[in-house]
Amino acid sequence: MKQSMTLIPTLREVPADADVKSHQLLLRAGFIRQNASGVYSFLPLGKKVLQNIEQIVREEMMAAGAMEILMPALQQAELWQESGRWYSYGPELMRLKDRHSREFALGATHEEVITSLVRDEIKSYKKLPLTLYQIQTKFRDEKRPRFGLLRGREFIMKDAYSFHSSPESLDEIYKKMFQAYSNIFERCGLNFRAVIADSGAMGGKDTHEFMVLSEIGEDTIAYSNESDYAANIEMAPVLAAYEKANEQQEELVKVETKDQKSIEQVAAFLNVPASKCIKTLIFKADDQFVLVLSRGDHEINDIKLKNYLEAASVELASPEETKALMNCSVGSLGPIDVDKDLKIVADHAVEYVINGVCGANDEDHHYTNVNPSRDLEVAAYTDLRFIQEGDPSPDGKGIIQFAKGIEVGHVFKLGTRYSEAMNATYLDENGRAQPMIMGCYGIGVSRTLAAVAEQFNDEKGFVWPANITPFDLHLIPVNMKDEQQAALANELYSVLGQHRFEVLMDDRQERPGVKFADSDLIGLPIRITVGKKASEGIVEVKERKTGNMFEVHKDELLEKISSLL
Amino acid sequence: MKQSMTLIPTLREVPADADVKSHQLLLRAGFIRQNASGVYSFLPLGKKVLQNIEQIVREEMMAAGAMEILMPALQQAELWQESGRWYSYGPELMRLKDRHSREFALGATHEEVITSLVRDEIKSYKKLPLTLYQIQTKFRDEKRPRFGLLRGREFIMKDAYSFHSSPESLDEIYKKMFQAYSNIFERCGLNFRAVIADSGAMGGKDTHEFMVLSEIGEDTIAYSNESDYAANIEMAPVLAAYEKANEQQEELVKVETKDQKSIEQVAAFLNVPASKCIKTLIFKADDQFVLVLSRGDHEINDIKLKNYLEAASVELASPEETKALMNCSVGSLGPIDVDKDLKIVADHAVEYVINGVCGANDEDHHYTNVNPSRDLEVAAYTDLRFIQEGDPSPDGKGIIQFAKGIEVGHVFKLGTRYSEAMNATYLDENGRAQPMIMGCYGIGVSRTLAAVAEQFNDEKGFVWPANITPFDLHLIPVNMKDEQQAALANELYSVLGQHRFEVLMDDRQERPGVKFADSDLIGLPIRITVGKKASEGIVEVKERKTGNMFEVHKDELLEKISSLL
Repeated sequence: MKQSMTLIPTLREVPADADVKSHQLLLRAGFIRQNASGVYSFLPLGKKVLQNIEQIVREEMMAAGAMEILMPALQQAELWQESGRWYSYGPELMRLKDRHSREFALGATHEEVITSLVRDEIKSYKKLPLTLYQIQTKFRDEKRPRFGLLRGREFIMKDAYSFHSSPESLDEIYKKMFQAYSNIFERCGLNFRAVIADSGAMGGKDTHEFMVLSEIGEDTIAYSNESDYAANIEMAPVLAAYEKANEQQEELVKVETKDQKSIEQVAAFLNVPASKCIKTLIFKADDQFVLVLSRGDHEINDIKLKNYLEAASVELASPEETKALMNCSVGSLGPIDVDKDLKIVADHAVEYVINGVCGANDEDHHYTNVNPSRDLEVAAYTDLRFIQEGDPSPDGKGIIQFAKGIEVGHVFKLGTRYSEAMNATYLDENGRAQPMIMGCYGIGVSRTLAAVAEQFNDEKGFVWPANITPFDLHLIPVNMKDEQQAALANELYSVLGQHRFEVLMDDRQERPGVKFADSDLIGLPIRITVGKKASEGIVEVKERKTGNMFEVHKDELLEKISSLL
Repeated sequence: MKQSMTLIPTLREVPADADVKSHQLLLRAGFIRQNASGVYSFLPLGKKVLQNIEQIVREEMMAAGAMEILMPALQQAELWQESGRWYSYGPELMRLKDRHSREFALGATHEEVITSLVRDEIKSYKKLPLTLYQIQTKFRDEKRPRFGLLRGREFIMKDAYSFHSSPESLDEIYKKMFQAYSNIFERCGLNFRAVIADSGAMGGKDTHEFMVLSEIGEDTIAYSNESDYAANIEMAPVLAAYEKANEQQEELVKVETKDQKSIEQVAAFLNVPASKCIKTLIFKADDQFVLVLSRGDHEINDIKLKNYLEAASVELASPEETKALMNCSVGSLGPIDVDKDLKIVADHAVEYVINGVCGANDEDHHYTNVNPSRDLEVAAYTDLRFIQEGDPSPDGKGIIQFAKGIEVGHVFKLGTRYSEAMNATYLDENGRAQPMIMGCYGIGVSRTLAAVAEQFNDEKGFVWPANITPFDLHLIPVNMKDEQQAALANELYSVLGQHRFEVLMDDRQERPGVKFADSDLIGLPIRITVGKKASEGIVEVKERKTGNMFEVHKDELLEKISSLL
């Protein structure tokens, strides 16, 4: 590609409203332009990266046995009414009416359309499993679009859906998809983690998010420093790998702790670490109050508590409820001498506290030398807290660390959520109608582009990974008016192209400084500069990643480049 | 691809609401499914053909120097207000509001978006010309969607736009695009014509439509049987290639023609051919009445008359206006003895009439033996009529024939229509701001698929041309339970795939009759049947196009197939 023929509108200044590196650089290097809030055009370089990512996605989907289709953006309201989401999806779903006043949604996702399609065409277990995918434009009217392509209102997604007659079959495809997703993000060069995620209200069982590690991510990932283990922080179990301190149990003492409310205050006042404090909270689990204990340096994880109690909902009791129940404020709550009817559950860690501190259900007083097995009536010790950095990894390998992540992919066992609502059934071997079991698998394709842009840059611009770079080589004749330079540049452009390298040639009449700065900003893996030594057939090669530069004779150029890429 | 893993829902019956062959077969062979009126899903086979067409489009756009981008479907109302089309486009433009009540159009076309993009980025003549294109989903709320993909409401289009600093530069790119379009439709195997079209109200100069010849087409094309000449019937000039009959001029006679009104009636009554009758019409050109003459077997073309008279509008005078002006009815009008102030213009052919017939401005009377040069006061003889089948081709080569066409492409010199309205200017060599000169170039990608489907079929199903067929080969083991057949089929599937053939293998447990009928319906170029002679390594090869069948040993299969494709 000759640069004079294409559109790469680079900017020297950082655009005012671009907060994150990827957004800034995609604008500055001329990859994208904004059309409206959260709506972008992909310029030639951006489009090329997008296509390279799509090609990788297609290859891996093919390998996973998924078939490509293309569904429409215009989706009849009736389908969304069948699934119930016409009402529940909220303002993120863009809606419009056609000339006959029929209502449509602009596809934010395609569960309804695909379920409708498959229910009409698949009648027998013999035709299952079936996995279909598309790469298509999605519309979601985000309340606050931000970070450029990372959270847009019109974006490109790969969404796949699988249909099964047994959970085992779903497991199998789920595994294949998981592998495909790992391959895709690996091939894009991303530093990512497959993270155990919350299946939320969807009723699914397994679900993983693929998170690209990034400081600007909105999710926290707990991962092992030694293994592949990673989970959304909400989902990570904590091993009960505590040890009792080698310490004599002392006698329980009630002490005055005037005006000391928080764990930090009490611990400082009594000169004990927070890990020796026992924090007492009252939760309302459905209609039942429960006293929940954790160590002062730990946080109760609502989801774990809810799952343990098998409750539909859990929430902290209000100060009023607490007062009515315990006749004290929240800051003075404690587990000693409480009503026998009030169930006490505690996080594992509490069991290992020796000579600890807890509230006394009496304003301005605490107990010290609390030893749970001796002093407390705990119904059960179990895993109720959020994992923390430094905790052992739940898989027993290594230590947990935290990272922020950008979600670029999601694999999900949907089960029969949609097939039941929309009556998508097949006849089993006994001729009985059964709801199809479904999985769904999404990748934010344009978001993946932004995630790569976020990870691959330095102070001068992009440093594209070889697999998805818009071009392999940036060929720069320093002075196109110099006949020898122009001749050698044109010769190399032609020869390199014939050898299947993608070459961008800067044939513009610009100053060398402008060309070099643009080249660093655009960030192709290798720059080839044709300058004063053109007459000797010598060019300068620069590797963008390392900054290494050296001179090469044109006869050795192909070999040199191949070894670098 | 193994058929058991994909979705090819073939139908035996012709779907009730599908009127044309392409629509019927795309449904029956499982290429597409309808989601809503004019809105379709592409199933795996349909998606593959679409991608093959897109690949051809990309290659030819690249060769023409056009750069691929991707613009959004969500387009701010403000842009359409700038061009004026927010108000003029009508209900075909789908509109919606976002959560903040901002108005958007769903892109029906992208002149506004691209003009806005380029005006922001291109400031100097040095950066021109520039040609950008995209392959993208368009939305047009057609009043009556029909013929499946031929007239849909959501469809795929390739739209390109070029920007220039001179008309010559536009000419150059226009020619390149014209060539690219010819190549694209040629490579798709289509029987098409590039047709001179009407530039309409757009103010452009050159414009060509690419028409696929088809009985279901909505346009009439006049084309030469010997050359490349083809035009929309409205645009074809008529050569004045008439000869005077070798006949003596007789004396003008007024005869009674009681109750004979139409040309047909008068000609029959007087026993002369319609070509000897002179038809007289009164047109109102802007505010001026004009008497317009043509031969009785010809039709006046309003567009030619309007252009000749340089009028803003021309229309037939009403019966009342005719009566007031000539004191007779429309059926009795004639050009003899009329008011000197009434201008008479005639089509060339009238000049060559000898001893003709015309109205006498007197009910129930006509003149015979009319000889225009002797009897009429004609201001000018010029080309005013529609071309007819049998006329000489305007390029002097061959004879004109008519055909119906489906418009699949359109190249158009827009000029400054959008750049002026939207203030898209560049600075010329003298530093003066000038509006960019634009061209636009569209291809209906999904419509092209339908056009190919319309041309390539027989009574059994599709007969896909090799360049865009979804797969090259249909490999059919007659009985997958037969171990030898299954083994040979799997071996061939693997070997053929390694040799870069795209193979669809029918590994379903279906009766041979079902498999063969589906195979004919799907219409891949070559069928390879693995049957009873599998043990000898012999398969049957059938060419879909010719129906030719023969047996081949597996060792000679590759060679045989290569020679056929």
